[in-house]
Amino acid sequence: MQVSLSQKCFAEFIGTFVLVLIGCGSAVLAGAHVGFLGIAFAFGLSVLTMVYAIGHISGCHINPAITISMLTTGKISGKDAGGYIVSQIAGAIAAAAVLYFIAQGRAEYTLAANGLGQNGYGDAYNDKYSLAAALTFEIVFTAIFLVVIHGATSKSNGNGALAGVAIGLSLTMIHIVGIPITGVSVNPARSIGPALFAGGDALSHLWVFIVGPIVGGVIGGWIWKMYDKA
Amino acid sequence: MQVSLSQKCFAEFIGTFVLVLIGCGSAVLAGAHVGFLGIAFAFGLSVLTMVYAIGHISGCHINPAITISMLTTGKISGKDAGGYIVSQIAGAIAAAAVLYFIAQGRAEYTLAANGLGQNGYGDAYNDKYSLAAALTFEIVFTAIFLVVIHGATSKSNGNGALAGVAIGLSLTMIHIVGIPITGVSVNPARSIGPALFAGGDALSHLWVFIVGPIVGGVIGGWIWKMYDKA
Amino acid sequence: MQVSLSQKCFAEFIGTFVLVLIGCGSAVLAGAHVGFLGIAFAFGLSVLTMVYAIGHISGCHINPAITISMLTTGKISGKDAGGYIVSQIAGAIAAAAVLYFIAQGRAEYTLAANGLGQNGYGDAYNDKYSLAAALTFEIVFTAIFLVVIHGATSKSNGNGALAGVAIGLSLTMIHIVGIPITGVSVNPARSIGPALFAGGDALSHLWVFIVGPIVGGVIGGWIWKMYDKA
Amino acid sequence: MQVSLSQKCFAEFIGTFVLVLIGCGSAVLAGAHVGFLGIAFAFGLSVLTMVYAIGHISGCHINPAITISMLTTGKISGKDAGGYIVSQIAGAIAAAAVLYFIAQGRAEYTLAANGLGQNGYGDAYNDKYSLAAALTFEIVFTAIFLVVIHGATSKSNGNGALAGVAIGLSLTMIHIVGIPITGVSVNPARSIGPALFAGGDALSHLWVFIVGPIVGGVIGGWIWKMYDKA
Repeated sequence: MQVSLSQKCFAEFIGTFVLVLIGCGSAVLAGAHVGFLGIAFAFGLSVLTMVYAIGHISGCHINPAITISMLTTGKISGKDAGGYIVSQIAGAIAAAAVLYFIAQGRAEYTLAANGLGQNGYGDAYNDKYSLAAALTFEIVFTAIFLVVIHGATSKSNGNGALAGVAIGLSLTMIHIVGIPITGVSVNPARSIGPALFAGGDALSHLWVFIVGPIVGGVIGGWIWKMYDKA
Repeated sequence: MQVSLSQKCFAEFIGTFVLVLIGCGSAVLAGAHVGFLGIAFAFGLSVLTMVYAIGHISGCHINPAITISMLTTGKISGKDAGGYIVSQIAGAIAAAAVLYFIAQGRAEYTLAANGLGQNGYGDAYNDKYSLAAALTFEIVFTAIFLVVIHGATSKSNGNGALAGVAIGLSLTMIHIVGIPITGVSVNPARSIGPALFAGGDALSHLWVFIVGPIVGGVIGGWIWKMYDKA
Repeated sequence: MQVSLSQKCFAEFIGTFVLVLIGCGSAVLAGAHVGFLGIAFAFGLSVLTMVYAIGHISGCHINPAITISMLTTGKISGKDAGGYIVSQIAGAIAAAAVLYFIAQGRAEYTLAANGLGQNGYGDAYNDKYSLAAALTFEIVFTAIFLVVIHGATSKSNGNGALAGVAIGLSLTMIHIVGIPITGVSVNPARSIGPALFAGGDALSHLWVFIVGPIVGGVIGGWIWKMYDKA
Repeated sequence: MQVSLSQKCFAEFIGTFVLVLIGCGSAVLAGAHVGFLGIAFAFGLSVLTMVYAIGHISGCHINPAITISMLTTGKISGKDAGGYIVSQIAGAIAAAAVLYFIAQGRAEYTLAANGLGQNGYGDAYNDKYSLAAALTFEIVFTAIFLVVIHGATSKSNGNGALAGVAIGLSLTMIHIVGIPITGVSVNPARSIGPALFAGGDALSHLWVFIVGPIVGGVIGGWIWKMYDKA
C-alpha cells in the first residue's frame, strides 16, 4: 500500500513530539537525577526508537536540518520537505506544551527557574561559551550528525538495518560533548518548541539554533557526497 | 512445531518475572549505587533481553497494557489475551516475592523504609507530582511505548530483527524521564506485583497504574494505525 | 574449513581472559571513577564483544555454568565440555595475573585493600547480605542468564544475529542489580581466577560461586526447554 | 561504482576527525559533567557510528594500529596503508585544532590547566601508574581491541552487520577500565593530534602511545589467526 504525504507528515509530527518530550523532558524533569549522561542517552534513544517506529513511513527526519540536507542532496522533493518541516515544528511545540503541563504538576517547578530544556549560550547557559564557540559547535556537530545519517542510509551501505542504532547513538555522543556549550540543538524544531514557552534569551538566541544546524546539515551532506560512491 | 497457548503463557510468566525482578530489583537492591540512570537501563534491558529470549514464542508482551493494545488492533484473540494477562500478573507477583526474600538478606532492609519498587505519586513518591501530572505521564508515555512497539514490529517494517533493541531502549528512555514522577509503570503487572507486598499508598494508588497504561496503550495503537500502511 | 577442538579451546581461553580482565579490571582499576553502573557495562560489553569475536568458532561460552547447561541440554559433547571448562578457568587465571601486574603499577594499590574483583558475601562484601540471599541470587540470576542464552540462540529464533547483543546486555542488567550482593559471579571461572590471588574469604566463599551458577544454569536450561518449540 | 583510494583516504580523515573531536571533546569540554563513564561511551560511540557511516567505503580503520594490523594479516596493501595512516593523523590534528578553538570559547579554559585530552602516565596522569603498567595496558588492550575487530569482521563470521556495534562498544569497555591509567590511546593518531597542541609531557610520553598500540595491534592479529578458520 502507498503511504500518503499526510501519513508521512503525521509520522514526522509524532516523531518530533517524542524527541522533544523525551529529550527536553529528561533535562527538565529528571536532569538533577540522571545528569548530563542520562540526558544524552534520552535524546539519542528517542531518535533510535523513532527510526524503528516511523522510519519505514517517513524516513524519520524529525529535524528540519535533516530534511533540508536531504533536499540539497536530492533525496526529497521540495513539496514534501515543506510538509515535513511544518509537521516537525508543530510536533515540537505540542511536546513543549505537554512537558510544561507535566512539569507544573510539581509544586516547586517554575518556568523561570527550571526552564523547558531550551538552548542557549553565554550567560544564559551552563559553562558560558562565546557565541563563536556555540555557533561553531552547532555547525560542526550537525555536519557530523548528517555524515552519519547519509552514510548509514547510503544505497551502497549493506548494513542499513543498523542505521537507526548508529544515528540514534550519534545524537547521544554529540550530547555527551555539547550539553555544557549550548544544551545541544543540531535541530531547529527541538529549539523552537521550548523557546516559544521560555521566551527571553531562548528567543533572542534562537537564530543560532536555526542557522547553525541548517548550515551544518548542508555541509554534512556535501562531505558525504565527497567520499561515498552511491 | 506448533507452540501451545500454555507454552506462550509460561513464556509470558517468565518474561514478566524477569522484568519485575530486574527492574524493581535494581531500585530496591542497587538504587543507591547505580542511580536513576542505572535503574532506567535495568528496566529497558530486561525487556530488550526478553524480546530475544521469548519473543519468538509469545511475542514478549510481558505487560497487560501491550496485550490489550494488541487486542484492540486485532493482533491477538480475546482468549489468548486473557491467558497472557493472568500469566503476566502471576509472574510479577512471583518476582516481587523472590525480590522480597533476597532483600531481607540484608540486615538493614525493611519493607516500610526501602519498599519493593512500587509505583506512586504525590507525597508517596520522589518529587511529589500531582495526580493529574502522574496520570498524564502514564497515559502519554505508555502511548509512546506502544507507538514504538507497533511501529517496530509492523509488517511493513523491514527491520524487524532490531525491534527488540528499539522496544527495550524505549523503556529505558521513558524511565530516564519519568522515575521522579511515578517511578514509571506503563505496565499494570509491574505495579501490581510490588503493591501487593508493599500495601498502603501502593495499593490505594494502584488504579492510576492500571488505568493510565491501559488507556495510553490503546491510544498508542490508534496513533500507529493512523500513520502506518500495514 | 573445519574448526578443531584446540582452536575452540583457545578461543574460549581468550574470551574468558577478556571477560575477567575487562570486568574485574573495571572494578579494581576504575571502580572509584565509573561506579557500579560502569562496572556493569564493562562485564556486559566484554561478553557482547566476545560473542561477535569468537562466537562463530566456539559459541563463546566463556563460562563453565553455560557449558554445563549446554551439556545438560544436549548441545555439546562431554569431551568438548571438558576442554572448554579447563580453557575457561585457565583464561580467568591468566587474566587475574595480568590484572594484578597492572594494578601494582599504581603505588597506592595493595591486594589486601583493593582486592582483585573477587566475589564474596556477608562481612566480606559491600552491603553484607546473608549466605541464603547470596546463594539465591546466584542461582536465580544465572537461571535468567541461561534463559536469555538458550532463547536468543534457539533454532526456532529468527533473530540469531542479535543474540550477542541480548546476551551481553543481560549480563549488564544482572550486574546492575547484583553487585551490592555478591559482586556477581554467575560464572565459576570469573570467580576462581581472582580468588586464587586474593585468598582468604574469596577462597572460603568460592563454593557459593561454583555451586550457585552451575545449579542456576541447569535450571535455566530446563525453563527454556519448557517453553521453546526448538 | 568503484571507490578510489582518495575517497577512502578522505573517509579515513573524516572518521578519525570525528573520533578525536568526540572522544577528546567529551573529556575536555564535558568530563566534569559526564565522568569517565560518559567519556568511555563518547569514544566507543564515535567508532560505532563511523563504522556505519564510512565502513562501506574504507573499512573504517581510523587508527594506524588497526591499519598496520590489517597490513600484517594481508588485508590491505602497503600503498593503501600508507595513505590511510597519513589521512588518520591529519584528521586527528584537524580535530584537535577545532577542539582547541571551541574550548577557548569558555573564559576559564586554559590549555595548561585543562589540556586537550592528551594521553600520559605517571605524574602526568590521573592515578599515576608506572611506565611498565602503562605500556602493558596499551599493548594488552590494543590486542583485545584487534581480536574483536578481526573476529567480528571475519569472513567466517555470519553476523558481520553487527561488527560495528561490537567494535565500537569494545572501545567503550576498554576506556571504562583504562582511563585512570593512561587516558587510553590504543590509537597512535588519537594521541598525536592532542599532543602536538599540548606539548610537554604529552610529547615526551608520545612514543608509548605509538609503540604500545602498534605492538598490541600486531599481536591481536596473530591471536585471531590462531583460532579463526577464515
